[in-house]
Parts: sequence; C-alpha cells; structure tokens
Amino acid sequence: MSLPKQITIHELGPREGMQIEKNPVSTQKKVELINALSECNFAEIEVVSFVSPKWVPQMADAEQVVEQMACNPNTRYTSVYLNTQGMARALAVKKLYVEGSLSVTASETFSKKNTNRSLEESLKEVQRRVEALKTVGIPASEVSVMAAFGCNFEGDIDPVKVIALIDRLIAIAQENNEQIQTIQLADTMGWANPLSIKNLVGLVQDRWPDQTINLHLHDTRGLGLANVMAALEMGVDDFDSSVGGLGGCPYAGFKDAPGNVVTEDLVHLCGELGIHTGIDLNRLLEVSMMAQEIVGHPLPGKVMHGGSLPVYRRAQGVSLRT
Amino acid sequence: MSLPKQITIHELGPREGMQIEKNPVSTQKKVELINALSECNFAEIEVVSFVSPKWVPQMADAEQVVEQMACNPNTRYTSVYLNTQGMARALAVKKLYVEGSLSVTASETFSKKNTNRSLEESLKEVQRRVEALKTVGIPASEVSVMAAFGCNFEGDIDPVKVIALIDRLIAIAQENNEQIQTIQLADTMGWANPLSIKNLVGLVQDRWPDQTINLHLHDTRGLGLANVMAALEMGVDDFDSSVGGLGGCPYAGFKDAPGNVVTEDLVHLCGELGIHTGIDLNRLLEVSMMAQEIVGHPLPGKVMHGGSLPVYRRAQGVSLRT
Repeated sequence: MSLPKQITIHELGPREGMQIEKNPVSTQKKVELINALSECNFAEIEVVSFVSPKWVPQMADAEQVVEQMACNPNTRYTSVYLNTQGMARALAVKKLYVEGSLSVTASETFSKKNTNRSLEESLKEVQRRVEALKTVGIPASEVSVMAAFGCNFEGDIDPVKVIALIDRLIAIAQENNEQIQTIQLADTMGWANPLSIKNLVGLVQDRWPDQTINLHLHDTRGLGLANVMAALEMGVDDFDSSVGGLGGCPYAGFKDAPGNVVTEDLVHLCGELGIHTGIDLNRLLEVSMMAQEIVGHPLPGKVMHGGSLPVYRRAQGVSLRT
Repeated sequence: MSLPKQITIHELGPREGMQIEKNPVSTQKKVELINALSECNFAEIEVVSFVSPKWVPQMADAEQVVEQMACNPNTRYTSVYLNTQGMARALAVKKLYVEGSLSVTASETFSKKNTNRSLEESLKEVQRRVEALKTVGIPASEVSVMAAFGCNFEGDIDPVKVIALIDRLIAIAQENNEQIQTIQLADTMGWANPLSIKNLVGLVQDRWPDQTINLHLHDTRGLGLANVMAALEMGVDDFDSSVGGLGGCPYAGFKDAPGNVVTEDLVHLCGELGIHTGIDLNRLLEVSMMAQEIVGHPLPGKVMHGGSLPVYRRAQGVSLRT
C-alpha cells in the first residue's frame, strides 16, 4: 500500500450546494461563502453554474456572484456549463478559468433525466463542444464519465462500458488534436464501494497510465471516505468535495439528495494519514459552520460537529502530525 | 487483501441511543424498537444499561423494558452494567445473557470522567469483577479497552499502552482460571483512522492469534466505515454498530455527540463486498426510520435516506448480489 504524498482538492460547495437549496440564498451570502473558502488555499473552487434560470433559478445571479467575489491568486475559480450558451456566459465574466471538459453519463436513462440527451446525442454534443472550445481557444483537457459505478435508474454499470466511453471521448479529443490530461470518474448516485473503486481505477490506470484520475464521489450511502481511502491506496491524488457536504443532485431521484464527500472530513482523513492537502483545516471548519448558517439547516459534515483532532492535540500540548 | 466471508454484528442502538436522548422515550416505544430489531436476526442486541437512575434517568425503566420485550431465539439480549449492583439487576431480570466483560479505559482522564476511577482503580475493579462473576457462575470471556486509539482529553494513545493493558486484563483472567475469547478495541471518541486501525489490529493479532477481535467504532469524524473497511481487510469479523446511528457518549465532551457506526450502512457495505451478515437490510431500514420517529430528530444513517441498492437493482430487474 503506497499512499500519495499529497493530493489536490477541488472545492465544489458553492456550485453543488447553492444549486439545490430550496430557500433562496442571497448573492451577498454566496459571495461571503466563496471569499471565506478562498482563504483556505484550494487549488480550485467551483463557484457557479451557467444554466437556464428557468431550470435552476438558484443560479440566476451567477454573473453577479463572480463579479463580486474576491480572488485568491493561488486558486482557480471555475464554473459548470452545459452548452455553448453557458460557455459564452462563463467566458464573458472574465474572472473564471473556463475548463474544457468532455462529459457523458454512463447511464442512458440518467443522461436523459440530467441533460435531456441520449448517450449517442451526448457524444455528438461532445463533438460540437470540442469544436466550440476550439473557436474560443480553450483546450479540451478533461474527459468525465458520470454515474460511472451505478445508477438508480439502470443499476450497476459495467466497468467495460465506462472504459469504452472514455475511449470514445479520448478518440474525439485526439481527432481534434486535443490532449486529455484528466479522466474524471463520477459516482453521481453513490453506487461505488471500495472494491469497485479499486477495480475501475485499476482498469483506467492500466489503459491510460499518464493521465490524472479525478474522483467525484457522492456520499449517498455513507461510503464516501471508505471509497476515498481505497482510491488513495491506488495512488489517486485528485478529488472533488464539498464544504460541510453541501449539495446533491436534483435529478437523481432521491428523497433526500446527499451531497459530495465532505471537504473538511477529507482534509482530516488526509491529515491523519500524513498526506498533504495544502488546506487550512481550522479555517475550513469555520467556513463549514458559516455554510451551515447560510443554508439554515444542519450539514452532514462530521468533523465540523465532532471537532478537529489537531486542535484536541494542541490543547494537550501534543505536537501536530501534519 | 482477503476479506472475511461473514461477520457478526452486535446491535447497540437501544442501549447507546436511549441513554443519550434528551426527550424522554416511553417504555413502550423502547420495547417496540427492540421487537422490530429482533426481526432482523442480529446475533446480539444490547437493550439496556443497569446504571444509577440518578446519573442516567433514561435507563430507569431498564427492568420493565426487558420484561416487556419479545425475544428472537437466534438473538442474545445483553446489557451494560458498571458494578456488582448493576450485574445483580441484569441477572435478576432473567431474559438477558449476562456477559463477563473486563473493561478499562486507555486514557486516565477519560476513565475518571466516564467511570469515576483511575486506571489503577479500574484494574482493581476488574479483579473484583472477576471474583463477582465467579460467585454467580459467569465466565469472564471478554476484555475491552476503551479510547484505544485516542482521547479528547489526552490526545493520541500509544498502541504499546493498549497492548500492555490487554496483557494485564488477560493476566487477571488467567490468574482466575478464566479463558478470554474476545478482545474488544473501542474507538470511543473517534480518533482512529484506517492506518491506526491496521496497526493496532495487527499488533493484537500477532500477540493473541486465537482470540476474536471486536471493534466498537464511533463515527465522530466520518471515518467509521473507512475504519471498518481497514479492519475487514485485516480479517476482523466482529463489529458493534447502532441502528440509524443512534447514540453517542454523554461524557466525551462533544457538543454534538456522534454515535456508533450505523448498522444499516455497515450491512450495506458488507452486502456490496459479498460479506454475509445474516441481517435483513430491508427490514432494518424500516427499523431505522422507526428509530428516527421515536427520537424525533434526523438520524445520521445514510442508506436510510439514500435508499438500498438491492432495492434499486430489483426495480430494474437486475439480480441481487447477496
């Protein structure tokens, strides 16, 4: 077992969280949350999504949020967009790093529910996306497969299908002279377990040894951090997560939509394992309490309620591990 | 990595949960919860504790609960008692299996807070306990070390100290011609991580290869199931857990005392890994919702909110794994 020495964490709380909250959150509160997260030194903070305000009214103020937020020069600020219209909005606000990500969903049914496109239509959209990215000079650098482990509507997803999809996405990129750097595997509806993580990650590593694997894991059935641990043991060093566990997916058919792996719990795990994250855990714990206050209901994060071990150690005069 | 083929789960929800709830739960509701759990086929259900009603008024009706509950012949019904007075009460109600457990806390400070005894006083009490057990014909079969990984009041606990304590407990048992079958390691305040689990479990296995190791893990910092996974990889096949995540420890100094590993999330994990638990997950999920209704606040269980994968698979006509 050889764990990575350091990992990169992509903070998705502002985007994942704000798009799903039922009670409206003011632009000012969104900006305050992002500004507080900016003090924690993330490599990336995903701040908004540029989607139709008809479908996601919570993101209608995306431009204002980006305009008003302060930026940490060490952090990339990113957004989600689903079509060229959204991409144009992301580019127009200037302050964002616009990612060229080619994404499909491994489940046909979920693809239709989430993006209103079949799998083949999604692959055609990917082709159009690469061309649109080229027009504005953005390289396609990431491929992503959602529902890569299973789907509430279609059951378990065969890893062979996921590998075939990544193959097709990378082929489209190559035909357009684009170099894919990151392969994202998303467990959108919480179907993964430590063994299926090791299995799929192993298959991807064997076939694409030079690409970074990013894991986007939802904690739907409580296995989020067990799955992270399995991935760390495979050498994966790139994870998405969400402060306090903000978020969830409005189209996954859950009664209580559970969010991503909790950022501060992930940072805590890494700290205990001696893996460097670059994140200030104490400041982050303050931000998770702030996030809880902003949304007005308890968040599922554990360390924010149970307390930070480094703080307990310091209180006893015991030196910190990290 | 070789996982066990099956594990034994000790359900602690009725005892762990009811001792900590602020709003009073009626005797009838406690009995209903136990009776519903009895339908799930646990090897053991810990139903009450026999402690002073002055300190834990929630357990004042322990005798009535035991008298009124129905019993599944496949299940052992057990209790917690801290002194000979409590042991006498446990024996008097007849329906219970009275365990001979020799327990100490690895942290001096926590020992005083939890049991009002120093470590040396605890070891003397263990000596008295063995003698008291002998008087009533109960074998001392288990030793237990609480706060075996760390303590909010003393910081990290050195595994060497834990091994030395187990040594002393087993020596006391042997001096009294008692045969210890189970060594329990309790992460009472959520200090363990997958590496510290593997380390301490490995040390115990090396020294006592013939004893069963039981893990009692609190999910204080969200690592409960990641720690279970690490233990499964070491071959550990005996776990405590709590339906819905009921419970916590009133003396651990938390603001929000987090409970044990969630039983149904543990059963789910094992089901996905192909490890037999003997527990009916569907019935158990109904019981966790019942437990939530009884305590009147959301419980931290994940599968109870996110849904059972076997049920989703069945809905798609996909065959079950377990």
